[in-house]
Amino acid sequence: MADVARHAGVSLKTVSRVVNQEPHVRTSLQQRVQAAISALGYRRNEAAARLARGATMLTLGLVMENISNEFYSRLAAAVEAASAEHEALVVFGSYEESAAKERMLIETMYARGVDSLIIVPSAADHSWLAEHAGLTTVFVDRVPSGLSAADVVLLDDVWGGRAATEHLLAHGHRRIALISDDDGLSSVHDRAIGYRSALAAAGVPADDELVVRGVFEPARVACEVGRLLGLPAPPTAFFATNNRAAIGILQALRERPERPAYVGFDDFALADVFNPGVTVVRYDVTRLARSAVDLLLNPSRTARRVKVPVELVTRGSGEIPA
Amino acid sequence: MADVARHAGVSLKTVSRVVNQEPHVRTSLQQRVQAAISALGYRRNEAAARLARGATMLTLGLVMENISNEFYSRLAAAVEAASAEHEALVVFGSYEESAAKERMLIETMYARGVDSLIIVPSAADHSWLAEHAGLTTVFVDRVPSGLSAADVVLLDDVWGGRAATEHLLAHGHRRIALISDDDGLSSVHDRAIGYRSALAAAGVPADDELVVRGVFEPARVACEVGRLLGLPAPPTAFFATNNRAAIGILQALRERPERPAYVGFDDFALADVFNPGVTVVRYDVTRLARSAVDLLLNPSRTARRVKVPVELVTRGSGEIPA
Repeated sequence: MADVARHAGVSLKTVSRVVNQEPHVRTSLQQRVQAAISALGYRRNEAAARLARGATMLTLGLVMENISNEFYSRLAAAVEAASAEHEALVVFGSYEESAAKERMLIETMYARGVDSLIIVPSAADHSWLAEHAGLTTVFVDRVPSGLSAADVVLLDDVWGGRAATEHLLAHGHRRIALISDDDGLSSVHDRAIGYRSALAAAGVPADDELVVRGVFEPARVACEVGRLLGLPAPPTAFFATNNRAAIGILQALRERPERPAYVGFDDFALADVFNPGVTVVRYDVTRLARSAVDLLLNPSRTARRVKVPVELVTRGSGEIPA
Repeated sequence: MADVARHAGVSLKTVSRVVNQEPHVRTSLQQRVQAAISALGYRRNEAAARLARGATMLTLGLVMENISNEFYSRLAAAVEAASAEHEALVVFGSYEESAAKERMLIETMYARGVDSLIIVPSAADHSWLAEHAGLTTVFVDRVPSGLSAADVVLLDDVWGGRAATEHLLAHGHRRIALISDDDGLSSVHDRAIGYRSALAAAGVPADDELVVRGVFEPARVACEVGRLLGLPAPPTAFFATNNRAAIGILQALRERPERPAYVGFDDFALADVFNPGVTVVRYDVTRLARSAVDLLLNPSRTARRVKVPVELVTRGSGEIPA
């Protein structure tokens, strides 16, 4: 456009007005600009013009803990697909377990004009979000702390924890270990409630010695699994409350002779390629994502809570007898 | 702030000027606003105020093909870590193999004030990016089409393809299949060049029957691997040019009796948990990400090209003899 302006001997503003077909441009100026455009072969960039008018695509922000975890990368892909149905784009950001970074990320997305946000919240207090009354927000997978009125899409975590544990009990196990990460998160907390309620219903006493909390990395999980298997009264089965815990169990069993049963929560790409395949509590991540996008695009004055069902998929690892 | 303005009987603009301590606000107005602030308990949101002044954190955009692929999710996490060292935030977007969506994503990030971009380019023409002269851009993993002067960070793909193939040749294989996706991408193209040059150096004729191109999904790879193993003169080894191809081989071998050797390009989380472990061409994704961020933050007038070395990691699957 600068070249066109120079060639026509007019201002950049005039070129812009002609190109955007604004009214009240003198015919002689219009003709000079059109001649310069023809001479230079200037081609209007439609996308750029649309953007210059402020007509960007509806943009959703997805804020989550750790993009390198398969749960989040699957969720991100599903949110993207659900948004594409509404011609919306998605930008992601992850906060790597830092509450301060989570807040800065949300504030920055807000300042950058992101229209609405889907947040997988950390365990930190989120009451400050109430200040951004104009920002439409939906929480996914976990209930945020300190916000009483917020739309939330959750998995049926209690049911999943109970189903996994009942399945292991049905195969004769009585010493079932629980491997979990941050039980300040509602999801982890609820899966553990399901585990305990299944044990209680079967009359099996819960043994705190078999409960591992606050372990995030597969390598550390593997270490804890090895420790538990070395106990005088070791577990014969494991319930892993997330994919990283299940992967840690796989790593531990590579080095150990024992063959305990185990069930994971969260499916993962290679779960059916192992021998035995990994029995998991699975859910439709597309449904999780679509529910969140639907809530975002249909705001309501009252807070809503959607629960996405989960199911047990048997592949071998959960059916090993005690 | 709207409540404060109403309470003080002044405009929102006046409240903003008082709160931001701008000069030339009449003392009487200042006092009325301060009184309203005290009465209402209005608390200035420092983060919001900083953002309103435009003082957001430096924001990098990362545009890539498919967030659910482990290569991209690892890259995203590494770019985020490298950016954090410079107190910059990262937003991601993925274009799911659509060139039109890739462009819209880049244009939208640009319009949203993202300061600079790291792009893993699709095979489409990127010459239109030259219009955004003000936008600092670094390409990663692939050379973009139609842009002669661009900073690019690449893996040593030719070396990796050759090393993988030489390794299989050294274990006695002569019929080595190549499984690849879009060879319009420079990375895929260069890995295939390495494969062919290793065969040529060993005097092994390349057999087009053993070359599979344009296959993206593990399930389709598995189908092609089954087909190749059923040939009258089947391959005894495979070189998979990316992680999805390697996973497709794992899936195929779950159903088949043959035990061919195979080497993958790209490491993945569970590669060492399988039995045998998966031999791969590996690289330091942190180094890849840090090189890109370094180029972004240190712009130059001349286009630069950085090549990140790769290495062969032997774990078992590549050492099966012919």
